[in-house]
Amino acid sequence: MITGSSVRKSAHPIDRQFLDRWSPRAMSGEPLSREELLSLFEAARWAPSSGNQQPWRMLFARRDTPEWATFFGLLAGGNQAWCERAAALVVFVSRTLNSYTGRTSVTHSYDTGAAWGYFALQGYLNGYVVHGMEGFDYERARRALGIPEEFRVEAMAAVGRAAPSDVLSVQLQTRETPSDRRVLEQTVCEGAWALPG
Amino acid sequence: MITGSSVRKSAHPIDRQFLDRWSPRAMSGEPLSREELLSLFEAARWAPSSGNQQPWRMLFARRDTPEWATFFGLLAGGNQAWCERAAALVVFVSRTLNSYTGRTSVTHSYDTGAAWGYFALQGYLNGYVVHGMEGFDYERARRALGIPEEFRVEAMAAVGRAAPSDVLSVQLQTRETPSDRRVLEQTVCEGAWALPG
Repeated sequence: MITGSSVRKSAHPIDRQFLDRWSPRAMSGEPLSREELLSLFEAARWAPSSGNQQPWRMLFARRDTPEWATFFGLLAGGNQAWCERAAALVVFVSRTLNSYTGRTSVTHSYDTGAAWGYFALQGYLNGYVVHGMEGFDYERARRALGIPEEFRVEAMAAVGRAAPSDVLSVQLQTRETPSDRRVLEQTVCEGAWALPG
Repeated sequence: MITGSSVRKSAHPIDRQFLDRWSPRAMSGEPLSREELLSLFEAARWAPSSGNQQPWRMLFARRDTPEWATFFGLLAGGNQAWCERAAALVVFVSRTLNSYTGRTSVTHSYDTGAAWGYFALQGYLNGYVVHGMEGFDYERARRALGIPEEFRVEAMAAVGRAAPSDVLSVQLQTRETPSDRRVLEQTVCEGAWALPG
């Protein structure tokens, strides 16, 4: 598997893992054990959250199990094309109520995103492909998986063993490269708002 | 600075950084340079996001600069008590519109949370204190910093150089220890929803 730093350059010194982690699509179709997957969930577990409320929840299905078809069926066709070689599909969900006040939480999605970020990083460190997705049916996910109303469906992710890019269609092969980022000057400013709209 | 793994145990093998990172409050009051801070923002820059839209934006103020009082004034009193020794205060903001469709983004907070997670991890790796906060005035932050309507204020964070815990009040000293987490069985399930409400 190629790493991000083979094509990306950081503008300021950072740990190499942040540059090397990216979101490939080429997976081998081999399974991952429950225990192998739990390593990624364990990294997510230790993410920071407001008041340590840990609003994140995750549902997953492994290939070659009865639950696989349900999860796979939620995906948009474009994602099914390459996720058929994934080892696991994960749905990230957040609890929308603040555990202390019972009112709507301000940070449930944001905190769950931090947990997802650690999940993805641990997956990279373990040598797996981890790829987040918005391309699926959110409402059907809620119904098919019985997700209670006070929880919000945030995103899905595919996890699998890496494979050479030629397992992908020619069209997807052209996209199988680490993406770049905006320059920091368009993202960060000192003092009041002075960024592009 | 004590590390999380001195009191925490992981249930499944993970990279030690996830266990070691935590959210201290004891900081020395020494400044951090712009360049030192940009390392944390650079790690955030390489987070994954839906369609690589990078919805995150960050505003920051360094201590001993004209902007400091504005940012510090947003904090709840309980956070001001220990943030007076921070080197920088950061406001995390997300763009709420999908760049491709112009409609409301589904993942802007979640993706920004992933960027925050990498920011916090890089700060830990650099030996700094990084502590996220919901305890501040969100509406006043928008007004005081001129944050446009299509952006959502997500959270703040304090960054500083670590100090012995006795710089804190006796009350805060008792809380100056890495927090634990729920067991994974209450957070993750295989297949449809089977988690506590």
